[in-house]
Amino acid sequence: MNRLIVEKEFFTFAEDEPMQLDSGLTLSPVTIAWERIGELNEAGDNAILITHAFSGDSHVTGYYTTDEKDEKPGWWDYLIGPGRAIDTNKYCVICPNILGSCMGSTGPASIDSARKKPWALDFPMLTIGDMVKAQKALVDHLGITRLRAVIGGSVGGMQVLEWCVRYPAMVDAAVPIATTMRHSALAIAFNEIARQAIMADPHWNNGSYYDGEHPSMGLAIARMVGHVTYLSDEAMRRKFGRRLQNKKEFSFGFDADFQIESYLRHQGTKFVNRFDANSLLYITRAADYFNAAERLAACGPLTGGPEAAIKYLVISYSTDWLYPTYQSRELVHTLKRSSQNVSFVEIESDCGHDAFLIPEPTLPELMRGFLAGVKP
Amino acid sequence: MNRLIVEKEFFTFAEDEPMQLDSGLTLSPVTIAWERIGELNEAGDNAILITHAFSGDSHVTGYYTTDEKDEKPGWWDYLIGPGRAIDTNKYCVICPNILGSCMGSTGPASIDSARKKPWALDFPMLTIGDMVKAQKALVDHLGITRLRAVIGGSVGGMQVLEWCVRYPAMVDAAVPIATTMRHSALAIAFNEIARQAIMADPHWNNGSYYDGEHPSMGLAIARMVGHVTYLSDEAMRRKFGRRLQNKKEFSFGFDADFQIESYLRHQGTKFVNRFDANSLLYITRAADYFNAAERLAACGPLTGGPEAAIKYLVISYSTDWLYPTYQSRELVHTLKRSSQNVSFVEIESDCGHDAFLIPEPTLPELMRGFLAGVKP
Repeated sequence: MNRLIVEKEFFTFAEDEPMQLDSGLTLSPVTIAWERIGELNEAGDNAILITHAFSGDSHVTGYYTTDEKDEKPGWWDYLIGPGRAIDTNKYCVICPNILGSCMGSTGPASIDSARKKPWALDFPMLTIGDMVKAQKALVDHLGITRLRAVIGGSVGGMQVLEWCVRYPAMVDAAVPIATTMRHSALAIAFNEIARQAIMADPHWNNGSYYDGEHPSMGLAIARMVGHVTYLSDEAMRRKFGRRLQNKKEFSFGFDADFQIESYLRHQGTKFVNRFDANSLLYITRAADYFNAAERLAACGPLTGGPEAAIKYLVISYSTDWLYPTYQSRELVHTLKRSSQNVSFVEIESDCGHDAFLIPEPTLPELMRGFLAGVKP
Repeated sequence: MNRLIVEKEFFTFAEDEPMQLDSGLTLSPVTIAWERIGELNEAGDNAILITHAFSGDSHVTGYYTTDEKDEKPGWWDYLIGPGRAIDTNKYCVICPNILGSCMGSTGPASIDSARKKPWALDFPMLTIGDMVKAQKALVDHLGITRLRAVIGGSVGGMQVLEWCVRYPAMVDAAVPIATTMRHSALAIAFNEIARQAIMADPHWNNGSYYDGEHPSMGLAIARMVGHVTYLSDEAMRRKFGRRLQNKKEFSFGFDADFQIESYLRHQGTKFVNRFDANSLLYITRAADYFNAAERLAACGPLTGGPEAAIKYLVISYSTDWLYPTYQSRELVHTLKRSSQNVSFVEIESDCGHDAFLIPEPTLPELMRGFLAGVKP
């Protein structure tokens, strides 16, 4: 079988003219890591932008090497590739790592060139709007004239909505998945607990830990909190229930007796090896600040009539309790009230918020059908 | 208005003969803090035992002093007192602090008399069964021959169920509220995150912190996790939504911008002043271990026919997602299959798991009616 091979690339801008951020601060220079699958056509109008979730990266599909023992494929591999639902024989798929992350794009762990050391908490606070603005710079740089679609789940879905309000004339279609126009108090609460867990770790050291021990305990706990919100009660009952870990009896101690404990500890430890604690602080804060409700309500079809409107496909999952279906319905109602072209599907799943990342047949079918109807 | 004045009392046992615990270990001596409201009749059969939730205490109703500037009343004050739904003119209400707690009963913060220092992690692991066994010793000591009812919510509800399987002949009626026969993976997950937050605090020091700084940051985070699970999405939207704290704009920093953040931080800090971190570890572990499903399924009416069976009133709350209504239904089905006498009510509320602690008219009405029908 021929592997789909992709390459991580880097785009740097705002070297001379700093990037203006929503906070009023600036950032210079800005690097965005990104990957491309499929070729851009001459008109530059067959590009699809994939926006990733908070801890995701640019490696959306395929592999980096032909080595069969290579790493796992990209995080949406089942959805994107030649002949797949998002068909890279037709579309040029672009996936950038978000600004503020630690997967190749500029973030708090990057070196501040002025001070020759990591930004840490001197990194300016970001918004989802800033992330999208940096994506726009990349898209322009690549000669993309229009985006056939912007597609993303969770915090990626927030970026989709931000594209629609910030650069509506560039977007033909938008697929916000398992997302919300704005965080509920519940979602903010979980993010705040995650942040407090990191900031309570003495190794966090007010964000300046890059030349010493990292706040690994705090970051692991933050990830455990996140993981619980990504799963559903149903999925956890099915996957773990009250099953014990490698033993038949309780330890009567504080070791991991239950499989769910062991799973969470493992997820926490794994995350520490690949993610930066300060990036978690910045990105969760941006997600908490995000609020597209009023701006989406103020959108109307572009001049050119209804056919010039963005085509939306809003998707939610039945057991997502982080961004429950009622929040997608609010999005749909907001879009309909401002005369947008909206379809809405709630996918039945017991996998909770994580469902959009788990291969199943419904999402690819929906995506294929929807994209077939989108014209530039 | 005449205040209901109560007094905290202490009962010490197992001084000569150590208490045998479910783990196989023993404990000696054992002190239980408790409070009483109302008088025990001559037959000793008008007592009602109230069992408290994980961070609760024996101060279930009334005040400790006549001083009008005194503290808040007990945690179920609206429900228990002369003429109230649980009428202390008729019943002798007893509320013991659970074994393992830090509110007067023996727990990990207590002095181990053999070593003349706090038990810390040398305190033996407890089960809900051990807590109930200690309550039984108190009940016997007080000359109570039968319990007209055992009533409690959350972890208190687990103690109710434990009484029914361990000492069924002593229990006339049982009211398990907002509880479960056994923790789901979700409930274990949140407890595990709380425990990890404490154990990650360097001041925890493997449990030995009583002569130094306490693991306050870890305990505060554990409490924040707990608080989110006690509230509902609905209640949080109503109480906090996305409202900002004392300001009109985002700080673009990591201070508490949202009211929900400020509320959680406040709850965390407040808890640190009144609760012991090791007690949280032991009690959450006991709750995770608790599993009454098979033992309840094995119960039948006592010899004496159906009229000798325990009368159950099972109560759940519609937005409780820690112990959701489906878990109360499982309890009801289990009890019905073993021919118990069961009523079940799901109370509509948007207050989540915490609802049983919040004054509203339904619970008192149900309680009054139910107790009127219970004969010794």
